[in-house]
Amino acid sequence: MKKYFLPESEIPKTWYNLMADLPKPPPPTLHPGTREPIGPDDLAPLFPMALIEQEVSQEPELKIPDQVLEVYQLWRPSPLIRATFLEKALKTPARIYYKYEGVSPAGSHKPNTAVAQAFYNKEAGVKRLATETGAGQWGSSLALAGQYFGLEVKVYMVRVSYDQKPYRRSMMQAWGAQVVPSPSEDTQFGRRILAEDPASRGSLGIAISEAVEDAAGRHDTKYSLGSVLNHVLLHQSIIGLETQKQMALAGDKPDVVIGCVGGGSNFAGLAFPYLRDKINGQAIEFRAIEPSACPTLTRGKYAYDFGDTASLTPLVAMHTLGHDFMPPGIHAGGLRYHGMAPMLSHVVEMGLVDAYAYNQVDVFRAATLFAGTEGIIPAPESAHAIQGAIVAAEEAREAGEEKVILFNLSGHGHFDMAAYDAWFKGDLEDVALPESELAKNLHSLDDLPVI
Amino acid sequence: MKKYFLPESEIPKTWYNLMADLPKPPPPTLHPGTREPIGPDDLAPLFPMALIEQEVSQEPELKIPDQVLEVYQLWRPSPLIRATFLEKALKTPARIYYKYEGVSPAGSHKPNTAVAQAFYNKEAGVKRLATETGAGQWGSSLALAGQYFGLEVKVYMVRVSYDQKPYRRSMMQAWGAQVVPSPSEDTQFGRRILAEDPASRGSLGIAISEAVEDAAGRHDTKYSLGSVLNHVLLHQSIIGLETQKQMALAGDKPDVVIGCVGGGSNFAGLAFPYLRDKINGQAIEFRAIEPSACPTLTRGKYAYDFGDTASLTPLVAMHTLGHDFMPPGIHAGGLRYHGMAPMLSHVVEMGLVDAYAYNQVDVFRAATLFAGTEGIIPAPESAHAIQGAIVAAEEAREAGEEKVILFNLSGHGHFDMAAYDAWFKGDLEDVALPESELAKNLHSLDDLPVI
Repeated sequence: MKKYFLPESEIPKTWYNLMADLPKPPPPTLHPGTREPIGPDDLAPLFPMALIEQEVSQEPELKIPDQVLEVYQLWRPSPLIRATFLEKALKTPARIYYKYEGVSPAGSHKPNTAVAQAFYNKEAGVKRLATETGAGQWGSSLALAGQYFGLEVKVYMVRVSYDQKPYRRSMMQAWGAQVVPSPSEDTQFGRRILAEDPASRGSLGIAISEAVEDAAGRHDTKYSLGSVLNHVLLHQSIIGLETQKQMALAGDKPDVVIGCVGGGSNFAGLAFPYLRDKINGQAIEFRAIEPSACPTLTRGKYAYDFGDTASLTPLVAMHTLGHDFMPPGIHAGGLRYHGMAPMLSHVVEMGLVDAYAYNQVDVFRAATLFAGTEGIIPAPESAHAIQGAIVAAEEAREAGEEKVILFNLSGHGHFDMAAYDAWFKGDLEDVALPESELAKNLHSLDDLPVI
Repeated sequence: MKKYFLPESEIPKTWYNLMADLPKPPPPTLHPGTREPIGPDDLAPLFPMALIEQEVSQEPELKIPDQVLEVYQLWRPSPLIRATFLEKALKTPARIYYKYEGVSPAGSHKPNTAVAQAFYNKEAGVKRLATETGAGQWGSSLALAGQYFGLEVKVYMVRVSYDQKPYRRSMMQAWGAQVVPSPSEDTQFGRRILAEDPASRGSLGIAISEAVEDAAGRHDTKYSLGSVLNHVLLHQSIIGLETQKQMALAGDKPDVVIGCVGGGSNFAGLAFPYLRDKINGQAIEFRAIEPSACPTLTRGKYAYDFGDTASLTPLVAMHTLGHDFMPPGIHAGGLRYHGMAPMLSHVVEMGLVDAYAYNQVDVFRAATLFAGTEGIIPAPESAHAIQGAIVAAEEAREAGEEKVILFNLSGHGHFDMAAYDAWFKGDLEDVALPESELAKNLHSLDDLPVI
C-alpha cells in the first residue's frame, strides 16, 4: 500500500483533447430535425459558446482557467494508490494501481467537469443551470460547483435513485440546489410521462429530456450534462494526465487501463491520455467495464440515436440500447444509461478499447474484497472497475505475468450503503436482461440515419 | 484554499506523550474496589501489556511500529488546508487552517488509535476485541483495524445511533465486525437495563459497561476504547505532529488551536504537541468545544468518577456530569459522553486550555456555511470545532487582528445526512439541559473519593 501524491503545483494546467490525435474523426452529430450535421448555433440555446467551442475543438491541449484550478485545489491532485493489500489477497504477480477520485467533496470524479461548466456558464452571464442526475453523483457535483460561481442549480433526479438515495438529495440541498424527482410535474415531458405511468421509476433519458426542456425554455438558464459530450471527456482528462505524472513517480507503466462506463466520462478521463500513447505506438490494453444489466458497449448497436427519451437532443453516433431502453433498477444507478459517449464509442469501434460486462453479484463481491483490503468502500459504479482489475489480476496470476494494472476508482460508496445492506442480506440478485426487451429497443433505431 | 500535503516519508515515526512535559502529573487513577491507585495488573484483564505501558509511560516520544505505519499510509499524512473560501465568507483578517482527518477510510481520526490498538492486541495473541460505539465512528474504525490484523470485532452500538445511523452498521459489517444495539441481550448489564427500560435509548456509558463485561469474561478477548485513555491520546498525537510540519510548510504558526471534545481524543491529538510549545513559553490559546447539551468541561465537576454507567471501570479524575448522566439525543452522537479524558481535564484545570459550549443550532449553521464554502460536509461533531473557529474569526474581525486559527476537522458527515435533513426542514432544535437533571447527576459524585 503506497500512495503517490503530487504537490498542488503539479496539477496539470491544460486538458487533453483526444480528438487531435484520432487517426480518423468520429461521425458528425446530426440535427434531430434536418438530420444534417449540427453547427454551433444549434447548440447555443443549451450551452455557452466556450463549451460549444470545446465540443468541436481539434486542439490537443486546452488551457484550464485559473478560477477552475482554484476550485480543483479543494481536492486535486487526487492520490494514485498502489493496491498492495489487494495484490496480496489475490496472490497475483500483477502490480495494481488505482487513481482515487472519491476524495472530491462530492465523492467522485464528476466535479472535474461540473466546476469547469459552472465557470464557463458564469462567464457567459448565465444565472441558472438545469441538469439531470442518476445516482446523484452528478447532481451533487453540479450543486457544489454552482456554489463557487453563484449559480442556481435545478436537478431532475431519476425517481428510483431519489427514493433509494435520500441522502444524496440532502447533500445537494446542503450545497443549495433544488432537487425534484423525475419524471416531475415541472416540465411538459415529465407531466406526459406521469400521465401515462404515475408510478414511473424514471430513467436518465427521461431526466435529460426534462432538464433540456427546462433550459431551452428559459433565457437565464443553460443545460449541463455530466457525461457523454466531448467537452465533458475533455475536462475529465485531468485524471489521466495527473496519473501519468504519478505513475512516473512510481516508476511504472500500465499494461492494462481499466474503468467503469455509464456515459463513459470517468473511463475516458483516465484512458484518453494513455490512448494517445497507444496511438503513438505503445502497447496498452484498455478495458471498459459495464453492468451486464445495461450492456451498451457489449450488446448495443453502433448507430445514430437520441441522447434522451423525448428525442429532443441531437442525433449522435454511439453504441446504444435504444433511447427507450429502460434498464433494470440495479444499484449502480450511474451506469444505467442507454447510450455512450460518441468519442468512446468511436475508439471502441476502431478496436482501440475493449468492452466487458459483469453482473452486479460479481461486482459486489469485488467491492467487499476491496473494502476489506484497501479500506475504501467503493461506489457500486466504481466497483465494476475493481471487478475488471481483479479479473485482469487473476489472468496475470494464471499466466504468471508481472502485469501492471491501472484502474479508476471513480468514487466512494458512502451514499450506497443500502445496496451493501442488500448484498450482506443476500437480497442482491443477478439482473438478467430480457432478450425480447433488448431486441425491441434496438429495433427502434431502424428509422434513424445509418452511420 | 490551499492544501499542504506531506509526502509519506514525512509521516512522524514517533507519537508524542504530553505526560513527559506536564509541570505536575494528573491525579492517579483509582481501583474501583480498594480506591487505591491502580497498577498494571489491574488493567491486564482488559488491555495487552504494551498498551498498559503506554498508559503510564513518562517518555516524551514512543516509536510507532512499522506495521502500524504501513496501515496509516492508507490515508496519512492527512491534508492541512487553508480555508480561504471560508475566510472570504467571514470577511475576517484571520487566516484559518484546518487539519482534515475525514480522509481515513472510516471517515474520521479514530483509526489513528484503532490501528495501533489492533496491532498491540494481535502481538499479544488476542483473537477478539470488544468495544462500544456512539455515533459509529469508533466502531467502524476498530472494524477496519481488525481486518488488517485478523481480529474479530464485536461492537456494542448505542441504541439511538444504531437506529439513527443504520449505514454506519453496514460499514462495520463491510469490514467484518459484529454489531448489536446497546443495551443488548448479550451481557448481564445490558439485560438488566432492558429489564428496567425495554425502550432504553442507551448511552456511551452503558455501551462501555457491556463491552468491558464482554472482554473481562472471555480469555480470548480484550477491550478497546476509542477515546479518554492516555494511550488513545498518545496515538492521536500524530495529528498535531503532522500539522506542525505542515504549518511550517505554510510558513505560519497558530495563535488559537481549536477542536471539538466528546471524550477528548481528537482535540488532544491536534493540541498536545502544541501544548508542549505553550509549556515551553509560546503564546498559544486553546479552545475545547463541546455541545451545550453535554457540557462536561463547562458545567461538569472535576472529580473522581467511573467511566461507565455500571461502575465497572477504574475511578478517574476528570470533568464529569456524573456517570448516570443521560444526555439528550442530539445529532453529534460522538460528543454525548458524561466524562472527559483525564489528561485533558488536567490541563483544563491547570488553565492551559479553555472550554466553550455551543448549541446544535449554531453548530449546524456553521456546518452549512462550511459545506458551502470549503465544500466538505462535516460531521456534526466536527462542526463544533468549525463553530469555534468561526467565533474566533469573528472576534479577530471585530478586533482587526490577523490571527492564525487552526482547528481539527475530525470527520466528514456522509453518514449524518439525516441530521442535515432535520436541519434543512427546520426540525432541529436548541437542546436545553434541565438544571435539575444536571444537579441530580452531579450529586451522585458525593460518595466518591475527592481529588
